[in-house]
Amino acid sequence: MSDYILNLGKKAKKASKILATMSTEIKNNILYNLAEELLKNAEYIKKENKKDLEAGQKKGLSKAFIDRLTLTDARIKSMAEGVRQIADFTDPIGKIEKGFKHKKGMSITQVRVPLGVIAMIFESRPNVTIDAGALALKSGNSIILRGGSDALYSNKVLKEIFVKAGEKYGLPEGAVQLVERTERELVQELITLNEYIDVIIPRGGKGLKKAIQANATIPMIETGAGLCHLYIDEFADKEKSIKIAVNAKAQRPGVCNAIETILINKDKLEEVLPDLEKALVEKNVEIRADEQSIKYLTKAIEATEEDWETEYLDLIISIKTVENLQEAIEHINKYGSMHSESIITENYNNAEKFLNEVDAAAVYVNTSTRFTDGGEYGFGGEIGISTQKLHARGPMGINELTSLKYIIRGNGQIRE
Amino acid sequence: MSDYILNLGKKAKKASKILATMSTEIKNNILYNLAEELLKNAEYIKKENKKDLEAGQKKGLSKAFIDRLTLTDARIKSMAEGVRQIADFTDPIGKIEKGFKHKKGMSITQVRVPLGVIAMIFESRPNVTIDAGALALKSGNSIILRGGSDALYSNKVLKEIFVKAGEKYGLPEGAVQLVERTERELVQELITLNEYIDVIIPRGGKGLKKAIQANATIPMIETGAGLCHLYIDEFADKEKSIKIAVNAKAQRPGVCNAIETILINKDKLEEVLPDLEKALVEKNVEIRADEQSIKYLTKAIEATEEDWETEYLDLIISIKTVENLQEAIEHINKYGSMHSESIITENYNNAEKFLNEVDAAAVYVNTSTRFTDGGEYGFGGEIGISTQKLHARGPMGINELTSLKYIIRGNGQIRE
Repeated sequence: MSDYILNLGKKAKKASKILATMSTEIKNNILYNLAEELLKNAEYIKKENKKDLEAGQKKGLSKAFIDRLTLTDARIKSMAEGVRQIADFTDPIGKIEKGFKHKKGMSITQVRVPLGVIAMIFESRPNVTIDAGALALKSGNSIILRGGSDALYSNKVLKEIFVKAGEKYGLPEGAVQLVERTERELVQELITLNEYIDVIIPRGGKGLKKAIQANATIPMIETGAGLCHLYIDEFADKEKSIKIAVNAKAQRPGVCNAIETILINKDKLEEVLPDLEKALVEKNVEIRADEQSIKYLTKAIEATEEDWETEYLDLIISIKTVENLQEAIEHINKYGSMHSESIITENYNNAEKFLNEVDAAAVYVNTSTRFTDGGEYGFGGEIGISTQKLHARGPMGINELTSLKYIIRGNGQIRE
Repeated sequence: MSDYILNLGKKAKKASKILATMSTEIKNNILYNLAEELLKNAEYIKKENKKDLEAGQKKGLSKAFIDRLTLTDARIKSMAEGVRQIADFTDPIGKIEKGFKHKKGMSITQVRVPLGVIAMIFESRPNVTIDAGALALKSGNSIILRGGSDALYSNKVLKEIFVKAGEKYGLPEGAVQLVERTERELVQELITLNEYIDVIIPRGGKGLKKAIQANATIPMIETGAGLCHLYIDEFADKEKSIKIAVNAKAQRPGVCNAIETILINKDKLEEVLPDLEKALVEKNVEIRADEQSIKYLTKAIEATEEDWETEYLDLIISIKTVENLQEAIEHINKYGSMHSESIITENYNNAEKFLNEVDAAAVYVNTSTRFTDGGEYGFGGEIGISTQKLHARGPMGINELTSLKYIIRGNGQIRE
């Protein structure tokens, strides 16, 4: 273990003890000031961000990647707005979830407490530094951030502003830290630092998740892997099918709740596919189709097994024909990432079967998967979308960054 | 990956799909019949258990170990009673935790669903086969059990009775399975079978927990490691101190919520220790004390650093002198297993500081740690006591064996 990572861990743990009992007022003052400082420092942020963008262009990073990396005035404003919203959330810490008097007279209460120290490992988007830092602070946790090396200048300036804005209002040293060195070994050290870190949150693609799953000894919450499907049932309405398919794929293709594969009932190929293709092509979507469906398409290329396993995060979609609902459910439970899945159908029993048997964080009938989002579900900002079943499932807000503790006040009780 | 483990995983996954939507009535019928069959087969169970006991005695297993392994008529009756209680619990599956109408008109509900497939790895107590199997079934999960090899005959007969009792009432094949082969490699295979297993629950000592933590790729819930402390504060009442210390250590020393170390304020040594020693020695407790406290004790031996790290699970206790409350809290947060911790004090501020700053599942004032228990906390049986912060903390009942799922019913909504 390097002194560098060990030190980050120790500082974070120390800060977490202070944050755990910090008043809501102090936390909010820090956040409001952070929002202001972000706006004041917009030029400085863009200057540092430009260093990453130039290096990224030289390196030949994809257009989508560069787009996610770019900080504009509008995005800085939106970050500041997000921080203010987080300040306005109800503080979850100290909430008494339940409580009762034990028959022997002690009072037993279950109280919400912070997790402690969070380590977040994320890929290109630098705004995560601010979002995750603010959510961690509001929920009384310290956080160690490890962003992609292509965003290092951007992450550094954002972390610097966070710490400076906070110091004036009582943010302890070590509350928000960034791994500023880019050696890969440091990630391995970070995810095994059980003594100081309570939870790892990876936010990124399947590869990142798998690597951490295989190597971490600290409990983790998987987020962000989104291999989502839309199933067009035998009893689907054509218009809804096309409208929702286009929205779920093309409205914002780079996010985890966009779909990657359309499963279509064999009886709907002729009716739906020609117009669906037209609508998708209009949005510049590339189509990869299986043997049966490709007959009804003019611009598609042939899909391979690999396509069913791929989260494109891009304007590409695969189409697969299924015999029936059962086959669709089995395909989804095999290839899906347990994120968001939708069926288009007018048939009651098929809708209910799909809702019951598809194993995912969010399951939809006649609705776009794009709604899986903390904001849309009514709990403000989110730190990610959990695709695992333990602890939190679906959009995770500040409540999901907390744990519980039993507090028992007695006066001499023993067990007999 | 061996075909043996792969097969267990596949069968469990298949069964989990059936269990997920099985009616409460069917689940309860299986459990009531299981309770009856356990009683009917008491002689058969004891006969098989005897094989383990004889082998254990030959092997020279400790008295405490043999005791945990032994199945008597009373224990079989208590298992059957436990199963009936679990049948009487409210079924958590299908409970709507929250629900609202989205502004675009879809209904969004959050529903409780099973985790899926649980793998439980436990040590000597064979009753876990029945308890864990019944809790898993009631919460709609299938379970793969891997008990200690010293209890194999006992676990086999209990699993056999479970399956036979269930078959008549619709228990699917694969719902309750036992790893009947004892090769250690099979455990490693089991804890990396991500495709079929959703959660690992180790139930046993620190060594087991650490090994699984280091090697599992499936999310786990740590349970059962109990290195608990009692802190006798400067403002402690002497009588409460002694009564609670004796209860927390000696009432049942082999369980995780018993204490292992007493921390005592330097100003209380003279007043408390002589009588505390008398009371402990009366219960046959061996005392290991630090340099300062040993001066006030006549039968203690000297403690070493190793004592602060040891969960004796036996009639042994260590005593350590601390300067003040702060040092006690630091010792607990360093050596404790985040299970149960208690302070004896009449001072309001010290009590509150201890409750706030000790990081454990259950924190007590003037109460024995022995109360950390699903039954005592009012939610019936438990599958273990979680000492981690994610998902569940403290006693875990059937609710903690579930996850959540968002269900969204719309009629064509897209996101703009």
